[in-house]
Amino acid sequence: MDKPGWRERLYIVVFFASTPAGRRFDAWLLLIIFASLVVVMLDSVQLYHIRHGELLALLEWCFTAIFAAEYLLRICIHPKPTEYVFSFYGAIDLLAILPAFLALLFPAAQYLLVIRVTRMLRVFRVLKLMPYLSQANFLLIALRGSRQKIIVFLLSITTMVIVFGTLLYVIEGPQHGFTSIPTSIYWAVVTMTTVGYGDIAPKTPLGQAVATLVMIAGYSVIAVPTGIFTAELATAMQPRRLHRTCPTCRKSLHEPDAAYCSRCGNALFPHQPPTGKDEEKRQD
Amino acid sequence: MDKPGWRERLYIVVFFASTPAGRRFDAWLLLIIFASLVVVMLDSVQLYHIRHGELLALLEWCFTAIFAAEYLLRICIHPKPTEYVFSFYGAIDLLAILPAFLALLFPAAQYLLVIRVTRMLRVFRVLKLMPYLSQANFLLIALRGSRQKIIVFLLSITTMVIVFGTLLYVIEGPQHGFTSIPTSIYWAVVTMTTVGYGDIAPKTPLGQAVATLVMIAGYSVIAVPTGIFTAELATAMQPRRLHRTCPTCRKSLHEPDAAYCSRCGNALFPHQPPTGKDEEKRQD
Amino acid sequence: MDKPGWRERLYIVVFFASTPAGRRFDAWLLLIIFASLVVVMLDSVQLYHIRHGELLALLEWCFTAIFAAEYLLRICIHPKPTEYVFSFYGAIDLLAILPAFLALLFPAAQYLLVIRVTRMLRVFRVLKLMPYLSQANFLLIALRGSRQKIIVFLLSITTMVIVFGTLLYVIEGPQHGFTSIPTSIYWAVVTMTTVGYGDIAPKTPLGQAVATLVMIAGYSVIAVPTGIFTAELATAMQPRRLHRTCPTCRKSLHEPDAAYCSRCGNALFPHQPPTGKDEEKRQD
Amino acid sequence: MDKPGWRERLYIVVFFASTPAGRRFDAWLLLIIFASLVVVMLDSVQLYHIRHGELLALLEWCFTAIFAAEYLLRICIHPKPTEYVFSFYGAIDLLAILPAFLALLFPAAQYLLVIRVTRMLRVFRVLKLMPYLSQANFLLIALRGSRQKIIVFLLSITTMVIVFGTLLYVIEGPQHGFTSIPTSIYWAVVTMTTVGYGDIAPKTPLGQAVATLVMIAGYSVIAVPTGIFTAELATAMQPRRLHRTCPTCRKSLHEPDAAYCSRCGNALFPHQPPTGKDEEKRQD
Repeated sequence: MDKPGWRERLYIVVFFASTPAGRRFDAWLLLIIFASLVVVMLDSVQLYHIRHGELLALLEWCFTAIFAAEYLLRICIHPKPTEYVFSFYGAIDLLAILPAFLALLFPAAQYLLVIRVTRMLRVFRVLKLMPYLSQANFLLIALRGSRQKIIVFLLSITTMVIVFGTLLYVIEGPQHGFTSIPTSIYWAVVTMTTVGYGDIAPKTPLGQAVATLVMIAGYSVIAVPTGIFTAELATAMQPRRLHRTCPTCRKSLHEPDAAYCSRCGNALFPHQPPTGKDEEKRQD
Repeated sequence: MDKPGWRERLYIVVFFASTPAGRRFDAWLLLIIFASLVVVMLDSVQLYHIRHGELLALLEWCFTAIFAAEYLLRICIHPKPTEYVFSFYGAIDLLAILPAFLALLFPAAQYLLVIRVTRMLRVFRVLKLMPYLSQANFLLIALRGSRQKIIVFLLSITTMVIVFGTLLYVIEGPQHGFTSIPTSIYWAVVTMTTVGYGDIAPKTPLGQAVATLVMIAGYSVIAVPTGIFTAELATAMQPRRLHRTCPTCRKSLHEPDAAYCSRCGNALFPHQPPTGKDEEKRQD
Repeated sequence: MDKPGWRERLYIVVFFASTPAGRRFDAWLLLIIFASLVVVMLDSVQLYHIRHGELLALLEWCFTAIFAAEYLLRICIHPKPTEYVFSFYGAIDLLAILPAFLALLFPAAQYLLVIRVTRMLRVFRVLKLMPYLSQANFLLIALRGSRQKIIVFLLSITTMVIVFGTLLYVIEGPQHGFTSIPTSIYWAVVTMTTVGYGDIAPKTPLGQAVATLVMIAGYSVIAVPTGIFTAELATAMQPRRLHRTCPTCRKSLHEPDAAYCSRCGNALFPHQPPTGKDEEKRQD
Repeated sequence: MDKPGWRERLYIVVFFASTPAGRRFDAWLLLIIFASLVVVMLDSVQLYHIRHGELLALLEWCFTAIFAAEYLLRICIHPKPTEYVFSFYGAIDLLAILPAFLALLFPAAQYLLVIRVTRMLRVFRVLKLMPYLSQANFLLIALRGSRQKIIVFLLSITTMVIVFGTLLYVIEGPQHGFTSIPTSIYWAVVTMTTVGYGDIAPKTPLGQAVATLVMIAGYSVIAVPTGIFTAELATAMQPRRLHRTCPTCRKSLHEPDAAYCSRCGNALFPHQPPTGKDEEKRQD
């Protein structure tokens, strides 16, 4: 029995999707991930928890078993198991099976639910979003380029939110729902982001006047991140500069449409007209 | 009687709006469509349903009769009836008359209302929005160009909504309105899109702090699709240009009717005079 | 007494702000307009209406008298009175004095309030926003350029709002606040524009799921008008094409950075190097 | 003892962050500022005020003492104390210690809270946001460039808000929450900015129809400031270019260090060799 060959073949099936078998493996995995997410969600609905609680728990154990088997398989067939275990996706894969085992130790641990839904992250892995990730990369470059502008923007927003929140706490007071400065800051964020739940709203004329200012500020300010990001993205999509070394002065980068070098004034391209063309034209 | 001629003339009147008769036909059809929509809406208001229910039902039957007659006419005069029946607009036209007949079979079928309002789609047909549709086409090109970026964007939003929704379900719990994970995800969508109904809102300080994060994320994230779409649209709106790399200077985009490169002055196409070139082509 | 001269001088003071007297006249008028708006607003507050109702009514009469005197003056001194009366600003000026006289005929006419606040429009006139209006013109050009795209956009939104509104009326029904199709369409607009009052909100799981779709649609769709307008504005601000008639073929518009004519390949500019420059360079 | 040297060294530590000691000083100051903000916020929460009120008051006094000591130190070691005191940051530093002393005079003065939270502004100082401030400068240039467009925009919004607010006051009336024109204007702002608290919402069909118009207007109008700002920012982000019209081809924008026009190859400056030119200048 050719064991290394068996391992290698499985490695390709499990970690890559280029073969039909690999694609089938991924499709099943995707299905199980979504099924497990559906089970988590249904179990949180009171009605289904009471009626079908045991069935849902059983299913959860099945999914955990499948994910555990998959995890062990991945460790087993990976050429460098430790590298896999400590990689980002290795951690995600471990998080998918952890909650069930932790639940044995801490039976009432609600927080395990949050760990369970991180299975959603596995979708990104399974879909092997290569063409998409290169796109995301594009977005990340635009975001990184506008990082400093965004930090200044967020600091200014934070200051505005704190000052306006405190102002409305002072104006409205606890009797109108602004029970403390943190609550008032929460109100200021709800208002500036134009979410506007309405659970806390100014009642006094002065409070409403200041709230009007906050809203118009928030409304105008939404232009800022949009503008920053769009301008950055437009820059990232702009025509690259002309890469051509000037034969005379060796300047290598020129304006996108340069015909002459801007430093030494010599032509960047041989500009003798195709022989005879000019004379022919003049004879027309 | 010259029957084909009669058919042809009607075909032009009914399917095209270039003649005065065709334009008059379309104007009446538009009027009837809007009238039928108004009748559907009025009938849904309790007050009018009780007072004028029978009149409205009668009007609905009249409109259905008119639409049915129009549908039969269209089938009758179309050169290829089956092609029309299975076309997109053929289906829309059928949907306009279906509800009344289905209502005979299932008298209480409320869902027929939704079918009835799809008559609104006929407006697009009647208006024959040619100049507008070319504009819509423009938008679609921009959307298609940014499709991959939008998929990554939507997947990230979905993940955020599921994780944050579960987090708030765990933090707030059913006693504050977060009755299940699906409901909490609904809350997360309401918050991230800055709709903010306020029917479900976090009450605990920790929940409000996490909600603040969700809002600021939603607020910042709105910049992403706007930026993507704008940059894509700006690119799509640039005048079509000739894609041909100049053999001398490598300039790749030229004016649509360029014969020579505007940067280096060399011909973009082989230098032989046009007469010779064409003959060479014919020899291929 | 030189009557025409007196008229002419007043005409310049009243209709133009270039002289110190004209500027003083405008400043007073602006003050009176704002004062009259404040009086209208205070009178609508129950408390002030009860306490100071008579004083506010007296002030309103004073303002009307002043505006009437100003209106008569404008008619009197304008070179072509009828032209002024039927101009846009003439109508605005008349609207400023009409409510008080109409109130004598229809004492309870609340709608006069709306006529009164149109005095706000006079601010635009008094400020003689010339530098600003040229800016607004810029915006209008951008808006006109994107008019067709905006019509397609609004028609699509209308269709979505009608179809989704009816869908939620069918799903949720009158018992959850969706009392009729028009009300449901109102809900759909409130949701798609991300206003989200919360006075009507879906209660059933299916309704909430569809509402989620509506919100995400609204959230994505906000990118469209922003993108259209920005791209249009960016185009309006772009570098104009090169206006230079090609000496050989008479082509007059070229790419912004063209050095050679793209039609005939001849240089657009005399490109002999400054004599001796090339030789000197080569000797370096 | 070399006293001036001691002062100078402290001056560098306190006012600049280039030395390790200076960076350590700033880190501590930042910590104390945030701690004092946390104390202000906790003290506003009823629960903590009752339980730990005295401790929080004590901490507040400690922070005031530290800030006062720091303020005196800054005055003491600054080369020009009066210049520091009347500078922007000097005023901010004074505001940080004022509330505690004012509280001795007016014990119940709630408004001191707002003064206290202005300590947040000190964060900008301590972080010495040089790279960031240059970015903010960037934003300010873009904002200043679009100032006129924004003024026209705000004036139009103000007019719309006043007219629509009055209209809904007339339509809905006090019985539906629109108690006065100022309140209705507040509602119009809440709606147009898409905040939508829902504390005031139209109830009558006509009111809801007009509200729909206001929402769609607000939704469309958000495109305007975003578009203006983005276009302005994109212009501001283009690399600085040399503004000099080429004497031959009239190209007006060049690379920052261009000596020759990149389009026609002619010199941008008089053709005399540099040596001669400089002497001519000196003769002027």
